[in-house]
Amino acid sequence: MVSVLFKCLVNGESHDTLSIGDRGLHYGDGLFETMAVVDGAIPFWPRHLERLRQGCVRLGIDGLAQDGVLADEMAQVCAGQERAVAKLVVSRGTGGRGYRPPPPHGLPTRIMILSPWPDHVSRLHNEGATLRYCDNLLSRNPALAGIKHLNRLEQVLARQEWGSDFDEGLMCDDRGLVIEGTMSNLFAVSQGAIMTPDLSQCGVAGIVRNWVMEQAQSMGVGWEIGAVDRHRLSCTDEIFITNSIIGVVPVRRLADRDYPIGTTTIKLIDQFPY
Amino acid sequence: MVSVLFKCLVNGESHDTLSIGDRGLHYGDGLFETMAVVDGAIPFWPRHLERLRQGCVRLGIDGLAQDGVLADEMAQVCAGQERAVAKLVVSRGTGGRGYRPPPPHGLPTRIMILSPWPDHVSRLHNEGATLRYCDNLLSRNPALAGIKHLNRLEQVLARQEWGSDFDEGLMCDDRGLVIEGTMSNLFAVSQGAIMTPDLSQCGVAGIVRNWVMEQAQSMGVGWEIGAVDRHRLSCTDEIFITNSIIGVVPVRRLADRDYPIGTTTIKLIDQFPY
Repeated sequence: MVSVLFKCLVNGESHDTLSIGDRGLHYGDGLFETMAVVDGAIPFWPRHLERLRQGCVRLGIDGLAQDGVLADEMAQVCAGQERAVAKLVVSRGTGGRGYRPPPPHGLPTRIMILSPWPDHVSRLHNEGATLRYCDNLLSRNPALAGIKHLNRLEQVLARQEWGSDFDEGLMCDDRGLVIEGTMSNLFAVSQGAIMTPDLSQCGVAGIVRNWVMEQAQSMGVGWEIGAVDRHRLSCTDEIFITNSIIGVVPVRRLADRDYPIGTTTIKLIDQFPY
Repeated sequence: MVSVLFKCLVNGESHDTLSIGDRGLHYGDGLFETMAVVDGAIPFWPRHLERLRQGCVRLGIDGLAQDGVLADEMAQVCAGQERAVAKLVVSRGTGGRGYRPPPPHGLPTRIMILSPWPDHVSRLHNEGATLRYCDNLLSRNPALAGIKHLNRLEQVLARQEWGSDFDEGLMCDDRGLVIEGTMSNLFAVSQGAIMTPDLSQCGVAGIVRNWVMEQAQSMGVGWEIGAVDRHRLSCTDEIFITNSIIGVVPVRRLADRDYPIGTTTIKLIDQFPY
């Protein structure tokens, strides 16, 4: 979300408002995708759609518009945009009594918002990112882990901890494990092999995170999902972060250590499709 | 929230829609109060307002309208209503870049919604409530515990576990402690003393929960906040649940045990102001 919204569709119609009864507002009862728009299209659209559908299954949200409808509306939103950010929010819709979801005839709300490509992306690509550790923790709940749901207060609280002096903050769980950044996934490279935190308890399984693991596989680079703590990060060779807007970004500083931009990170950046 | 909304104010004006950029929708970045309206007024208004203000401090939401403005608008919403439910939602407002809250000049959104008094309240008072245990867990995060924030997916998932065959479901944390119902606080009475779960890790500190503890104090009834598990509940004398709409409601069945409506519960019901 940015301050200037320049195109919105709500359930396929041009609107910049939402029903006051929407469950997205009342309970965060929904999901979202934040996507890069490149030359009027979304390069990773099938992956975003798949994650969104998986999230709907996990939350029991039925009746989301068909793939073709979503693709057509998104194409309409993205038309003529060289570079932009598209956000697709899907809520369970309006109604229901209290927390109880409405009967099956209640339909989800789909909201598409186009906003400008952020300026900081090219700087991150040129300079790398400076990271800090956040004091705010991620809570653990396997039922919500992995999906990109609308309950994001923990990220909001963490992002309040600093201003513009860092590019990203890493969040840990109550076991002291480092899980992800407030808006990105985390990778550590040691002796040429890639490791990324396990997200079975908390965190968002990013589209680019999956792409990195597939890419590593096809490049013959070893990769592992596992437990990552601060000590491990302090003695790793390279660190990079990913999300759908920034792609793959090398970390040049985390806490009190500088990191080199290593060959594995550079290879992945070179392979990234946009 | 009910399916028929019959009066809405957004920032003091009559609206039934909200800006698509509101952070309440995007991140659940806000708080709410659900309040009983009795003869055109809200009996516990000062308590609700205090909890809302505390929640704003916890989340770092500045600039909410002054008490007098909120009270005037709420009086306008409640005017002429013999019995109704008023919901006040406060979000951090629109804007900001991603999770980062907008600069201080961004103002919170306040939404007031009036809806009909639910039919099931009198039945609960006459018959008592039938409870089950939910499989879905509450995650633990002291930074969010106690306040009534808009991240309520765990309650939505829990409420999906059953239909109309139970009145409420109790939710536990990952330590096996029973914390609260999906929409109510929990009390157990043993040998005339009241116990209610500790909410320092998760749960909502209800207005009526606080009222019960004050009332117990003034009635000379012992009370304690502590760890409550299923075993403890299975061998307690009385159980009751509370919230601002149902007040104090005796539990007549939980899991596979029937409970009597005991003298402590009856005394509290008699004292309840509405």
